[in-house]
Amino acid sequence: MQEEKEHIQFELTDELIEQVEVLIEEKNDKELNTLFSEFHYADIAEVLDELDLEDATYVIKLLDSETTSDVLMELDEDNREKILRNLSAKEIADEIEELDTDDAADIIAELPEERQAEVISQIEDQEHKAEIEELLAYDEDTAGGLMAKELVKVYETWTVAGCLRRIRGQAKEVTRVHSIYVVNKQDKLIGRLSLKDLIVAKSDQKIADISNSSVDWVHVQDDVEDVARVMAKYDLEAIPVVDDNQTLLGRITIDDIVDVLKEEADKDYQLAAGISQDVDSDDSVWKLTRARIPWLFLGLVGGVGAFLIMEGFHEAFSKYAILFFFTPLIAAMAGNVGVQSSAIIVQGLANDDIKGSINSRLMKEMLLAALNGVILAIFLFLFVWATQQDAATAFAISISLVVVIIVAGLIGTFVPLFLDKRGIDPAIATGPFITTSNDIFGILIYFTIAKLILGI
Amino acid sequence: MQEEKEHIQFELTDELIEQVEVLIEEKNDKELNTLFSEFHYADIAEVLDELDLEDATYVIKLLDSETTSDVLMELDEDNREKILRNLSAKEIADEIEELDTDDAADIIAELPEERQAEVISQIEDQEHKAEIEELLAYDEDTAGGLMAKELVKVYETWTVAGCLRRIRGQAKEVTRVHSIYVVNKQDKLIGRLSLKDLIVAKSDQKIADISNSSVDWVHVQDDVEDVARVMAKYDLEAIPVVDDNQTLLGRITIDDIVDVLKEEADKDYQLAAGISQDVDSDDSVWKLTRARIPWLFLGLVGGVGAFLIMEGFHEAFSKYAILFFFTPLIAAMAGNVGVQSSAIIVQGLANDDIKGSINSRLMKEMLLAALNGVILAIFLFLFVWATQQDAATAFAISISLVVVIIVAGLIGTFVPLFLDKRGIDPAIATGPFITTSNDIFGILIYFTIAKLILGI
Repeated sequence: MQEEKEHIQFELTDELIEQVEVLIEEKNDKELNTLFSEFHYADIAEVLDELDLEDATYVIKLLDSETTSDVLMELDEDNREKILRNLSAKEIADEIEELDTDDAADIIAELPEERQAEVISQIEDQEHKAEIEELLAYDEDTAGGLMAKELVKVYETWTVAGCLRRIRGQAKEVTRVHSIYVVNKQDKLIGRLSLKDLIVAKSDQKIADISNSSVDWVHVQDDVEDVARVMAKYDLEAIPVVDDNQTLLGRITIDDIVDVLKEEADKDYQLAAGISQDVDSDDSVWKLTRARIPWLFLGLVGGVGAFLIMEGFHEAFSKYAILFFFTPLIAAMAGNVGVQSSAIIVQGLANDDIKGSINSRLMKEMLLAALNGVILAIFLFLFVWATQQDAATAFAISISLVVVIIVAGLIGTFVPLFLDKRGIDPAIATGPFITTSNDIFGILIYFTIAKLILGI
Repeated sequence: MQEEKEHIQFELTDELIEQVEVLIEEKNDKELNTLFSEFHYADIAEVLDELDLEDATYVIKLLDSETTSDVLMELDEDNREKILRNLSAKEIADEIEELDTDDAADIIAELPEERQAEVISQIEDQEHKAEIEELLAYDEDTAGGLMAKELVKVYETWTVAGCLRRIRGQAKEVTRVHSIYVVNKQDKLIGRLSLKDLIVAKSDQKIADISNSSVDWVHVQDDVEDVARVMAKYDLEAIPVVDDNQTLLGRITIDDIVDVLKEEADKDYQLAAGISQDVDSDDSVWKLTRARIPWLFLGLVGGVGAFLIMEGFHEAFSKYAILFFFTPLIAAMAGNVGVQSSAIIVQGLANDDIKGSINSRLMKEMLLAALNGVILAIFLFLFVWATQQDAATAFAISISLVVVIIVAGLIGTFVPLFLDKRGIDPAIATGPFITTSNDIFGILIYFTIAKLILGI
């Protein structure tokens, strides 16, 4: 058997990083090669992400292209960008030669435009180059932008024996075979079969007899989120990509979809927290500020709005100062309810669970909010009445709470649905957007109701 | 070719549902069978989720077990529970016979305990029954609870030709072959190879010569989140599960991991919005209330806390009423910053990006929060000064904003890290937990600082 260290046992320790740094300082290439030869490329990438730029670049230049190309794909995006800046166009092209077309296209797309043409011109394998250029033409959020050209295709007229003979060549290129795609003479996708089907069949049968004409496909312009949904729904591991004429153009594999799913989830989660760019805790203070401050600014503006509203009601102060002391409570409840409602809707939209009319959902939310509001208002009423001995004030605050919760729930339900119908990402309407607008509406409604009931 | 309708073209329309309902009413079994025979089981499940319980049960009893077993797995959990209640133990056992062991175990685990033994006793295939009982013994959040017993294993002493011959039988049972696992005489996992490796090899080679001894595995007690992380990191599509002695027990496939990833993301997203159970917008008002009201109650208690703090400072009113009007702003900013900080940390923990000491992260967050706070405070100062012409008050409010933002950021960073180190899900410290505690701290700090500066 080919001996390799088991990946599962890899552990990124400070000792390991020190060991690597020392070896680099000593320029002990032999030891470094031996050390890294035992690691999976994903683990090498983890180590490089912890080294400084100089050391990481040293390792990339040291290891062979077949390994480093895979390592590059696994690096943190920002680190990869810095390392690529340190490589010449020829060195990058050498990495490109080793990569599958989808990864190759991704790497090139990350480069600044001036460098892209230079790198592409240095690619020696002309077929590889042509395929990469084809992929670069597609929008990155579409199936075309996600797919790879590597796949195994067979013609319907072949026999099983002939097929096995011929695909040996094709299969060497393809890392994971999954389904074998069946095409007709015009290269149009007409069916599929699995390696298992091939092995289990008799050698003289024709491909057309053993293949399945029901083959799921996506169109090259389809949104990646729709592709992910289809693959998750039908438990697919790979899906072919076709154009308007059903010509087989490429395929998307499940590992790319897993990445898309994780990125989508991360993005929605960050939007709900009011972070507008793709950041993680290792980014620079400046980059994190740029991502966080826009929504904080929105919150500040909302706070000023709340101030102006409260100032507008300030004549109520002498007699009903207590109303102002309950404002944070009202604002907080409005925010919490709004966030809950919008989270449920946004999640439902992402999972494609939302069917039926908007109106019936709003009715349901109103009922739900009213129920929750009344339960909470009863507790609040008892508290205020017990501590202030003033039933009228207690009543005014409690009734306001119920109304505010109902309105907050309706806003939290309606806004994401509205945005979604207009083709805007509903996840924007979660987090600070909802909390800030609900704070404003909540405080306004609160004082208006209090004014009516208490006659201020 | 076997003719089937292409799944991609399936569309769940009102007309389709009506058509199905009418056919059921007429008890037109022949038409129903023809109609459903064209659909993928995931699509049949979508249709059934829209029918009422009686109609859905009718279809389940009508279609053959091979189809309905897969359909049952794709149904909404609540609908599945209701339908299973309508089936006899024997009918459920018939479905179980058709399912892979992991799905079979999941279905049985969902049944009330009294029914489980009854259904298991009705399973005819004794080997299937034994395997299911083995799986049921594992915790559902572990690799053992997620794995299936179906896999293809070969002995290292076989030849390639002998292997191809023998796995025809095994491969018929296994839906997706992926890696073939190599075991020694004691059934211990020692290597892997792919169907592709088999096809490309010469027929007289021994398995031991062509297989790879570096095989990733997970332990049967490993947490499913760790399994998901490993599979995503190494781009695996299936992973074998072993026990302490490296005995091969089962395998986990990527489609199950995709489901785990989606459920995890949904759960974290809901926790961040203050929803404590697994709900979606189609659940009953009562169920949604039960999931949402605990956190709303926490918010209410927090609001009462804020009230008490403000009441404690009420002598400041006559002279500095304006301080109270800015309370919502301070509370909102504290909440927003806290949510942002905790979201970044929780996401970093989920993606296993958080390395290094807690202290360095807290220092970084303090710097970041100070920077953001000062930027926002400058704007606030200018606004208050311009509208109130009182520099002292403007100063007090602005300084408070900076301090509150720094403290909120530190709380938002520290609490998830602290929980994570104690083995508690850090996602609890997002959403209402953070906003409520930051509201309290924020208001307390605000008035304390104002008192110091303005001498109230």
